[in-house]
Amino acid sequence: MGLLVVGSVALDSVKTPFGAVTEALGGSATYFSTAASYFTDVRLVAVVGEDFPEAHLAFLKGRGVRMEGLQRQPGRTFRWTGEYGEALNEARTLDTQLNVFQSFRPALPASYLDSPFVFLANIDPELQMDVLRQVKRPQFVACDTMNFWISGKRDALIKTLGAVDMVVINDGEARALAGEVNLVKAAGKILAWGPKTVIIKRGEYGVLMFNGRATFAAPAYPLEQVFDPTGAGDSFAGGLMGFLAQKGEVSDVTLRQAVIHGSVMASYNVEAFSVDGMRALTQAGIEARYRGFSALTAFEHIPL
Amino acid sequence: MGLLVVGSVALDSVKTPFGAVTEALGGSATYFSTAASYFTDVRLVAVVGEDFPEAHLAFLKGRGVRMEGLQRQPGRTFRWTGEYGEALNEARTLDTQLNVFQSFRPALPASYLDSPFVFLANIDPELQMDVLRQVKRPQFVACDTMNFWISGKRDALIKTLGAVDMVVINDGEARALAGEVNLVKAAGKILAWGPKTVIIKRGEYGVLMFNGRATFAAPAYPLEQVFDPTGAGDSFAGGLMGFLAQKGEVSDVTLRQAVIHGSVMASYNVEAFSVDGMRALTQAGIEARYRGFSALTAFEHIPL
Repeated sequence: MGLLVVGSVALDSVKTPFGAVTEALGGSATYFSTAASYFTDVRLVAVVGEDFPEAHLAFLKGRGVRMEGLQRQPGRTFRWTGEYGEALNEARTLDTQLNVFQSFRPALPASYLDSPFVFLANIDPELQMDVLRQVKRPQFVACDTMNFWISGKRDALIKTLGAVDMVVINDGEARALAGEVNLVKAAGKILAWGPKTVIIKRGEYGVLMFNGRATFAAPAYPLEQVFDPTGAGDSFAGGLMGFLAQKGEVSDVTLRQAVIHGSVMASYNVEAFSVDGMRALTQAGIEARYRGFSALTAFEHIPL
Repeated sequence: MGLLVVGSVALDSVKTPFGAVTEALGGSATYFSTAASYFTDVRLVAVVGEDFPEAHLAFLKGRGVRMEGLQRQPGRTFRWTGEYGEALNEARTLDTQLNVFQSFRPALPASYLDSPFVFLANIDPELQMDVLRQVKRPQFVACDTMNFWISGKRDALIKTLGAVDMVVINDGEARALAGEVNLVKAAGKILAWGPKTVIIKRGEYGVLMFNGRATFAAPAYPLEQVFDPTGAGDSFAGGLMGFLAQKGEVSDVTLRQAVIHGSVMASYNVEAFSVDGMRALTQAGIEARYRGFSALTAFEHIPL
């Protein structure tokens, strides 16, 4: 089923202890779309400048991502520069140039309006609501956010939370949003604002999913080499939402399996710069790593 | 089967955001023995001073812990004072008084010498080897350690690692010991020193178990209220080794189930000060939380 994503498409310059790239393909909607493209029909809503390389557009088109919603505006593309230390757990932002992203007003093409699955990546919560108002009765909507909106547009964000089925945020954001150190309590508070499911991303420690009845914990895939964690959260969300859209059904079981598919995509993504770790995956590769998660977590019936 | 543990018995004064206790029952061997006592016959080796309260001895005896190896020496019992901040993830040590623990020389009573399962809790690695030399051909030996020995007695510690079947350490210690930030690589290095299994504790994020062939990841039980994390690692080790000793057999499957039983005991322990969270558990309660871990981690066949 069609999966709409609104977010950023950017040019990232990233340095890790293992190397560096300059103006590589990045942005939340890029990582999300690339991951989700292995599962379903993805519809991208974003903005780029006149300088955005054709090769990047060609890559996304090649992955089958629909681009009618990608605006090309006068000016330069959103740029982000950051670096990671030895522990690779948190990016230090060196420079952010919003450029055309600063005045981004998402306008959905007619061909997107019936999208049954919607992901509102990390943008201004007022724009997230703008997008939601344009889509016709979507079946399932999820959103992400970040500390900038939690502190700067809290009321608008809580309004967005009241309009979505699921929120996917990291642990620090969940704590800041709820004003609560304990994650179980933080999730409870966020659920009370409206979403039926809260997924908390914990980086190398995996994710926790809460729905007020049961909790699901998934580890991150243990890797010998994490090359660049940029986009891990968005790749996770892409695999998660892509799998749900593929199934066309959201249940306790599909949500758990979707979390694992998200974790699979994130694990591939962090093995290389930019989206390179997800450029040429196969269904067999994705399924093999999914079975790897069974082997990693089972303790009753061990599929070894 | 008999499970020998050598470690500390202490009086802990602990402050958390939720309260404080003064000179409460603590120490690695105490937490370990209490947790393990729900599974098997535990044999304690430790030292206390003349001031050690009879009520604490009575509690351990009441749990069925064998005490022939508990020395009572002239002087004061080992005391530790620490506090935790809001995040509860790391203790700040305010005071350590080794007292009688400083000159501790573990001497095994004859009744312990045939112990098939042995846990060398966090003490001087030379003393760990002393204990190992005294036990007659144990079936399975595991050890813990800490940064103090990693930096101060590295050669002795690596010798101990060469003599044990399994090591149970926290993530920071694993990184320091191996000189390697990536935990998968760190585990590989530690395995190369001798142990067939490496278990890395990650606090609120659970544990990873490595054996060079497969990796097992277990989450910590998500709790609404972590009251005092002191002794979580030792309670984990007690549940883990206690379960293995109860089964009398160490296989890939029993090790994974033992990790979950260790996680169950740690989750009960952190719900109260000292060993209070483990004072009066029932088999039914332990089994219920064990099944809770199935519900928490399953994504193929969900036991909801």
